[in-house]
Amino acid sequence: MSRVAYVNGTYVPMNEAYVHIDDRGYQFADGVYEGISVRRGKLVDLEPHLDRLWRSMQELRIAPPMERAPMRFILREVVRRNRINDGFIYMQITRGVARRDHPFPAHSVPAMVVTVKRMDFDASMKRAAEQGVAASSQPDIRWGRCDVKSTSLLPNILAKQAAREAGAFEAVLVDKDGYVTEGSSTNIWMVTKDGKLVTRSTDDNILPGITRQSVKKVAESLQMSIEERKFSLEEVKDAAEMFLTSSTSCATPIVVLDGEKIGDGTPGPVAKRLIEAYQAYMDAGA
Amino acid sequence: MSRVAYVNGTYVPMNEAYVHIDDRGYQFADGVYEGISVRRGKLVDLEPHLDRLWRSMQELRIAPPMERAPMRFILREVVRRNRINDGFIYMQITRGVARRDHPFPAHSVPAMVVTVKRMDFDASMKRAAEQGVAASSQPDIRWGRCDVKSTSLLPNILAKQAAREAGAFEAVLVDKDGYVTEGSSTNIWMVTKDGKLVTRSTDDNILPGITRQSVKKVAESLQMSIEERKFSLEEVKDAAEMFLTSSTSCATPIVVLDGEKIGDGTPGPVAKRLIEAYQAYMDAGA
Repeated sequence: MSRVAYVNGTYVPMNEAYVHIDDRGYQFADGVYEGISVRRGKLVDLEPHLDRLWRSMQELRIAPPMERAPMRFILREVVRRNRINDGFIYMQITRGVARRDHPFPAHSVPAMVVTVKRMDFDASMKRAAEQGVAASSQPDIRWGRCDVKSTSLLPNILAKQAAREAGAFEAVLVDKDGYVTEGSSTNIWMVTKDGKLVTRSTDDNILPGITRQSVKKVAESLQMSIEERKFSLEEVKDAAEMFLTSSTSCATPIVVLDGEKIGDGTPGPVAKRLIEAYQAYMDAGA
Repeated sequence: MSRVAYVNGTYVPMNEAYVHIDDRGYQFADGVYEGISVRRGKLVDLEPHLDRLWRSMQELRIAPPMERAPMRFILREVVRRNRINDGFIYMQITRGVARRDHPFPAHSVPAMVVTVKRMDFDASMKRAAEQGVAASSQPDIRWGRCDVKSTSLLPNILAKQAAREAGAFEAVLVDKDGYVTEGSSTNIWMVTKDGKLVTRSTDDNILPGITRQSVKKVAESLQMSIEERKFSLEEVKDAAEMFLTSSTSCATPIVVLDGEKIGDGTPGPVAKRLIEAYQAYMDAGA
């Protein structure tokens, strides 16, 4: 079966899924997006994702293309039409089509695109818990509004590409002062030698990750001690454990950073416990 | 006559000019662009624009979709098919279509789009010389590679919009240290009280403007004294004159900045001389 996308009001086969060249998303990165996991047919953390989407639109003053109820319906319909059990929804909303000019157009209809792809979370979480991944530190050269989940992602893809060429799965972004901000498409965590979970505060020009928030809740339910604060590249290299969180990667241990082992270079007990507990959280149809 | 665009190998009416939703330009701002003026049917500064386009592609490692000769042909053909005498070409090249994933795809065919719109340079340059425009200072929150002419323009449109809402034509971007970097889609110049032309050096994380370069040449031919250096918002507010340069705006005096008059609040003699000389440069079919 060919994949089906939702594009501006209609469900179309992927090979007919097109947008106009004057869509401001194409010319100006004037758009926002969300990525939502689908677990056993259910959308994980749907409401927090919609909350964040609404906040992103508000910050950029893009009018929501519809209310939340029809949007929920469309997301589920794309999942249904693609017969997805475990998967990942990608949705993008732009300011719409207007003759190219920098200021916001007086009249434009926001554009909305939704796609979904199949995922195997069981296999990927098993692999994550067994093997972990390598990461590579890269300078954070992004703009000043990284709290908005916009499609202005060129610095992110360049950092991810640099990491991949360094043999790593993810880029750990480091600001001018040597502090870790986040990954190129993930949030970054460490476990200190005295067993504290640490991740950067979302007040601090990073994206408020939904999986970050859910993993935090899961960790709290496990009575883990959590600090939200800055930490330097130096500090994390000396940590007991390190891991990343994102909708597609869930919680994934980082076992090597810049070629150096984190801890003993294998997934640690705290990360493994969180992976298991997060999996249970997803399975509970959160 | 409906407008005609070039889209990935074919000339199509604007209302049929579409790109795939998986084009990386749409999802990641993974693309570069150029804007080229057309004066009496001729492309102004075509070769410097192509030089810069090639540099942008090289910096992002996007493979040129074709050699320069066929690209020149296509640009001229779009002008011809739209019967443009005076106008503005917009061209955009992205890394192409690939299933959404941050790293560069192993295989993708770069996408190329070209459009052109009609302009009235005689009227706009006359209006510029007579009236000038207002500008508004805005914080420069862009990323660390503003030397690349990429479509990652969200901070630029937000700054332009903020300026428009402040009653101004252009945003003058100011870095954290209080220095002017450039406009949201222009380069910024000032004329000091002792008659020196000053504009920021292109070594300094700003876009190397083609019109900036041509106006510099024109100023040199008029024996004007030019300094390329940083200048603060404070210094420019005390300048004798101020102006911006860009392909569409040519040279345009800024007569008011943040509600305060620059000089006597009318277009100054140096800017007027440059507008006249730049017009002659364009007319000579540069």
